[in-house]
Amino acid sequence: MSEKNLLLEAFGQTAYQLSGNRKRNLQVLKDALDPLDGNLASDQYGTGKLIEEFQQKMAAFLGKESAVFFPSGTMAQQIALRIWCDEAGIKKVAYHPLSHLEIHEENGLKELHQIESVLLADTNRTIVLDDVLGMKEQVACLLLELPQREIGGVLPPYEDLEAISAHCRKQGIKLHLDGARLLEILPYYQKTAAELCSLFDSVYMSFYKGIGGVAGAILAGSEAFTKVSKVWKRRHGGDLISLYPYIVSADYYFEQRAHKMEQYYTDAVELAGYFNGCHAVETKPQVPVSNMFHVHFAWPKEQVEPVLIQISQQTGIGFTHYLRPARESDSSCYYEISIGDLYANIPQDQLRAAFQMLDNAMRAGSEGK
Amino acid sequence: MSEKNLLLEAFGQTAYQLSGNRKRNLQVLKDALDPLDGNLASDQYGTGKLIEEFQQKMAAFLGKESAVFFPSGTMAQQIALRIWCDEAGIKKVAYHPLSHLEIHEENGLKELHQIESVLLADTNRTIVLDDVLGMKEQVACLLLELPQREIGGVLPPYEDLEAISAHCRKQGIKLHLDGARLLEILPYYQKTAAELCSLFDSVYMSFYKGIGGVAGAILAGSEAFTKVSKVWKRRHGGDLISLYPYIVSADYYFEQRAHKMEQYYTDAVELAGYFNGCHAVETKPQVPVSNMFHVHFAWPKEQVEPVLIQISQQTGIGFTHYLRPARESDSSCYYEISIGDLYANIPQDQLRAAFQMLDNAMRAGSEGK
Repeated sequence: MSEKNLLLEAFGQTAYQLSGNRKRNLQVLKDALDPLDGNLASDQYGTGKLIEEFQQKMAAFLGKESAVFFPSGTMAQQIALRIWCDEAGIKKVAYHPLSHLEIHEENGLKELHQIESVLLADTNRTIVLDDVLGMKEQVACLLLELPQREIGGVLPPYEDLEAISAHCRKQGIKLHLDGARLLEILPYYQKTAAELCSLFDSVYMSFYKGIGGVAGAILAGSEAFTKVSKVWKRRHGGDLISLYPYIVSADYYFEQRAHKMEQYYTDAVELAGYFNGCHAVETKPQVPVSNMFHVHFAWPKEQVEPVLIQISQQTGIGFTHYLRPARESDSSCYYEISIGDLYANIPQDQLRAAFQMLDNAMRAGSEGK
Repeated sequence: MSEKNLLLEAFGQTAYQLSGNRKRNLQVLKDALDPLDGNLASDQYGTGKLIEEFQQKMAAFLGKESAVFFPSGTMAQQIALRIWCDEAGIKKVAYHPLSHLEIHEENGLKELHQIESVLLADTNRTIVLDDVLGMKEQVACLLLELPQREIGGVLPPYEDLEAISAHCRKQGIKLHLDGARLLEILPYYQKTAAELCSLFDSVYMSFYKGIGGVAGAILAGSEAFTKVSKVWKRRHGGDLISLYPYIVSADYYFEQRAHKMEQYYTDAVELAGYFNGCHAVETKPQVPVSNMFHVHFAWPKEQVEPVLIQISQQTGIGFTHYLRPARESDSSCYYEISIGDLYANIPQDQLRAAFQMLDNAMRAGSEGK
């Protein structure tokens, strides 16, 4: 058995976990269905009360004319960019080099839509106003991912967003929000979803990140934009006869957790503080701006794993089920934390004891080197 | 209120319906989830016991090396054709002019994959061996839809399928089965799924037609083929973090109904006989070869609707909730029947009385003309 599996196994036996809302099992869907009348009619190829009402609710929440429910953000975002490219007659869009579209979608944007990407900023920081002002190539659309997940969940200053939005409008560049974690950043910006979304022409939001639904996404924008998005949804094979399993769970957990994002954010700041208090451990960003951050250890993953296994066995607290080599170097490693409901369940004294153990182990290990 | 809505409304109030398995409501999913332990882990981006075991089960059932679960047949089939086109270096496929890909997918195959279609046969009949032998253009793949749904569910002779398959193999043309209604045709051919599928290089099957699941599809073929299909599934935005709502319902209703297809077929033959016994009414095909057929009335829909409304109100039997003008002419109309569990619930005397009423009304109306 590999060390990775030992960590996963030890994690699976812990009573408490730092990250997440709950286990991703069938009960998640059962709980969302339980309060609903079985006689409720399924949506039918994008029509029907169940889907239309939820779409209207989300459009209002995001301050947009219209919204369309999609099975996935991958589908929703490629389609958004395709629409803007077709409208502009330019097959180019700009985004961050670590955008989901660039590294997690098997080049779908290029392979299915023949859209080229212009990469702004670099892999260590988020896109700022100067990147946009300095862009030489003509693009149909600029996509901003807020927060920039792959670098720990980082945000540009709100003033930058406003300036980027104003610049794009002046230049005729559409601005699209990859808001997979849209709710999660509102407490930091101290804005409503509608206020933030007003800076963007189109917006995608996910229902299985902080909200913890089963799957699914919303794409919102003008009536004309969402109408065309439905045509592309059918072309992609996303216009299912029934999307209700995702819709009912999206709605259920939205109601349950949308108002908890401030708490998750505060918890993330607290937890990052515990990590940063440990020797040879730091978080990125140092002070979280959402419910998420990355934990970096200045040791290779093979050396950190036994430490985390021991802590989980002695304290019952699971830090993570995986570690990845850092992008920069194999001699350090990291993992991602997204705070949800589970963090609040951990007894504070056990939590402090766990971090004391981590600090001790990292110190002892460093001295032993 | 339009007449169409009156028919829909009257249909909604009937105690019995000719078509279908049950209402498409949330209870369909609840029933599939109820027997399952809530602790069962979700599938995760195409991996995990829940999805892998079902894929293996379906691969074995279809007699193929491997199978992949997709959210929709639209996605699965475009991807199958894309793979065969890429492999052959030919961006052309052949299928029937009323194929789902040609008329129900907003040109996804062309818009997303730049694949051109060569249309075989004509809109009144199914593809036969001569169509394939006479094909002048070079194609990567031939898609056969069995049964050909848009013309009432028609099948070519099995000998034709064997000859087409042999011809395609000799010519290096891949043969793909649009088996949205694959189970539904096995009783007529008196073949197992694996026997039929052995004629094809790739096979798609749906879980919400005769089986009556919530949604979802299987794409099966060689290990190499399905491996590439997973890459395209991600590109299309179909590699959801959780597909289990569709998988558990597909499996549940497959177990419940796969063995009932012979009964549905026999019921369809009986029911078509009742229709064909009525004046100015005929079914296509006249003798069904699956659980489905189309009912054609030699009158415009505006004249048939009041008749069906009256019958439903007087007998409690719903014939249909819609009528469409015939493809050939507005002076006649038709609708589709797919037999499922509901047909067997109808008391035979009430059923005969309903058809007596239909015959009488159609005769009286014709005389009055």
